[in-house]
Amino acid sequence: MFISESLSVNENGHLAIASADVVDLAKKYGTPLYIMDEDRISGICREYVDAMRKCCGENFMVHYASKAFCTKYIYKIIDIDGMGADVVSGGELFTAISAGFPAGKVSFHGNNKTSDEIEYALSVGVREFIVDNREELHLINRIAKEKETVANISFRIKPGVDAHTHDFIKTGQIDSKFGVALENNEAFDMISEALELSNVKLVGLHCHIGSQIFESEPFAEAARVMIGFIAKIKNELGVKICELNLGGGFGIRYTENDDPKNIFETVKNFTDVVKSECRKNNIDFPFLSIEPGRSVVAESGITVYTVGSVKEIRDIRTYVSIDGGMTDNPRYALYGAEYTVLLPERPLDKKTETVTVAGRNCESGDLIGVDLKLPKVKAGELLAVLTTGAYNYSMASNYNRVPRPPVVMVSKGKDKLIVRRETYEDLIKNDLV
Amino acid sequence: MFISESLSVNENGHLAIASADVVDLAKKYGTPLYIMDEDRISGICREYVDAMRKCCGENFMVHYASKAFCTKYIYKIIDIDGMGADVVSGGELFTAISAGFPAGKVSFHGNNKTSDEIEYALSVGVREFIVDNREELHLINRIAKEKETVANISFRIKPGVDAHTHDFIKTGQIDSKFGVALENNEAFDMISEALELSNVKLVGLHCHIGSQIFESEPFAEAARVMIGFIAKIKNELGVKICELNLGGGFGIRYTENDDPKNIFETVKNFTDVVKSECRKNNIDFPFLSIEPGRSVVAESGITVYTVGSVKEIRDIRTYVSIDGGMTDNPRYALYGAEYTVLLPERPLDKKTETVTVAGRNCESGDLIGVDLKLPKVKAGELLAVLTTGAYNYSMASNYNRVPRPPVVMVSKGKDKLIVRRETYEDLIKNDLV
Repeated sequence: MFISESLSVNENGHLAIASADVVDLAKKYGTPLYIMDEDRISGICREYVDAMRKCCGENFMVHYASKAFCTKYIYKIIDIDGMGADVVSGGELFTAISAGFPAGKVSFHGNNKTSDEIEYALSVGVREFIVDNREELHLINRIAKEKETVANISFRIKPGVDAHTHDFIKTGQIDSKFGVALENNEAFDMISEALELSNVKLVGLHCHIGSQIFESEPFAEAARVMIGFIAKIKNELGVKICELNLGGGFGIRYTENDDPKNIFETVKNFTDVVKSECRKNNIDFPFLSIEPGRSVVAESGITVYTVGSVKEIRDIRTYVSIDGGMTDNPRYALYGAEYTVLLPERPLDKKTETVTVAGRNCESGDLIGVDLKLPKVKAGELLAVLTTGAYNYSMASNYNRVPRPPVVMVSKGKDKLIVRRETYEDLIKNDLV
Repeated sequence: MFISESLSVNENGHLAIASADVVDLAKKYGTPLYIMDEDRISGICREYVDAMRKCCGENFMVHYASKAFCTKYIYKIIDIDGMGADVVSGGELFTAISAGFPAGKVSFHGNNKTSDEIEYALSVGVREFIVDNREELHLINRIAKEKETVANISFRIKPGVDAHTHDFIKTGQIDSKFGVALENNEAFDMISEALELSNVKLVGLHCHIGSQIFESEPFAEAARVMIGFIAKIKNELGVKICELNLGGGFGIRYTENDDPKNIFETVKNFTDVVKSECRKNNIDFPFLSIEPGRSVVAESGITVYTVGSVKEIRDIRTYVSIDGGMTDNPRYALYGAEYTVLLPERPLDKKTETVTVAGRNCESGDLIGVDLKLPKVKAGELLAVLTTGAYNYSMASNYNRVPRPPVVMVSKGKDKLIVRRETYEDLIKNDLV
């Protein structure tokens, strides 16, 4: 009925998420409010793990990409059946550790890890560093040496596959701030260099080809390129690369125009390619990792707002203003991202109007979306934006000194406040004078 | 020598801001680090007040637009010689009040004020509300009635002047989420409506035509339109509008291509127009307000980073990665904003290289700027981004759970930490489970 399986209509005719009445939750916690379906999140984790197990035996790991939504509680949800996490900062690592998540299942990403972060990650014992560049390789080696330890490393490789364009192409991607390139031998040279270092141990290769990818061919092509490179390293350097991490980027539904494949099909497609390429290149099937983030949490989340005003400018546009905006969801401002909206108090009412949903921030670009379909709405009604589980809370700011909304998790109809609403006092807590 | 008057080179050959050594400050406080020149900020406030006084006698008010940079300390700097502030949220108002700033000098803006915010603003006694729309007008009236008080209001008017385009035009601006339009009589009708309400008192009109405006003609045109409208209200409704607020939007220097007028010239240009239009329309010169924000703080601020890696991709691009990025300065990601960068340890070195300065966040769009001029730089060096005093700290986020940098104010060579660096503990302080 709705674009997200988490949503339904209950006996009051209200929108329900994971069987909890959204209108009741808005009354209980106030708006703006992030609500997420915990059961759906754990179900998707389970689907990824099961799909990988069917396709790879026990030779795999599913890492949740923390940047999509990072709070202590998410690590409790994803800590099932061997699932790991990737983090991109000391702050994400600290959050995972604070939640009791095992550091030994955490990969440390990022294009610019600081010395402090590397020391911290080594001290808690992360699984591995995904090394981005030459300076970082030597920095990790040096710090590991000082700490008399050996750091497991993988290299982030630019496979030359750019899935950000509609017709994916094999050029341009070398022009990225992330990782080392294959085309100019940079990756090969750096791996040779790493093999000479005393305090890093090369365990694998990593690549990530983009976000919101719906086609299987870019993943297949990335797998072909990476297996080919693993074979080249084996043949030319006599070194066996045991692990391959194909990253994330699996597409999800923001609007009804988005049509993602199911998880098993996605996983089977690229694992089949890995298998055939391994046979062709005469190498062992590697320990295979993936890093879904957005696809684990996005569709499970909604944001509920209260409408403050409806500004009909005849023959031009109708602005529906809400009590949140780019401070809790900057994705329209950043990317012109598209969303689906509805009215939780009457979710099945016919969407007869075309409106622009505007945020409360003092900025013209503070919109949730233009030309969105809604029933005729009036001030005081609730408005829900769907598919906000990823890159909303994590990207939220205090611009205009607007406190960040709370996050409520719902499981089997029961709600639980996992992140409380910021207060005005929170906003000035670091102001010393 | 530099685009900002706050900057100089000291006897060590280092970059200095307000006579303090930037390299020393980076050592003392770490990076990333916001540094601001307090003397420059108060000097600019003084310039605005003096210019308005010269042009308007005592019949004026300069409001600092808080959204540009909002911390407790800024209200201590701007609280001089009758200067006021405008706020756009309860959080900004709370910050001002917490700093001891008099609520009676605060105007409350925003396109979607909540009931809670209106109650709070009435309870502390703000100077006035700048009313955005009809629902808000009635909401303010109702809450004021409940509280047995009368709220001073001004209306935010869309004057039909759009200064966001290079050749400013008089169309389109009606299509804005802010305010009420003149063209379709919406403003006139709403003013008539406001006059019938018991608990609001109409004191003035407000307009704001855009940001980063370098020409005087858009301000002049806005003044002509607004004075004409004040005359129409007098003639047709028999009501005297005593105050006119012409908003802000005064341009500043991000790069050497920006060429703003000096403050006195800017103020004289539009006050001359207000005077002549008042004579022409046979109305009294109104109490005149302006709302500079960016122009008060932007050029006084710099952000200092440490370079983590330099990625030369031959024939394509050189990426210089820093230990901050869109989390402390999202303006490139949001608007493709342009900045000037230099190396604080050797600010006069010839800028022989063209580089892209990339942030540390896991996002391709996390850049500070492309094709920036720098000397050849290596990992470990400091890098300063200039003109970051406005819309940097205020727009900062914890994306990727990166702690927000501290803010240091410098006055006469002395540094003072006004906002401390966020800690990892701060990041999880609201995580309840």
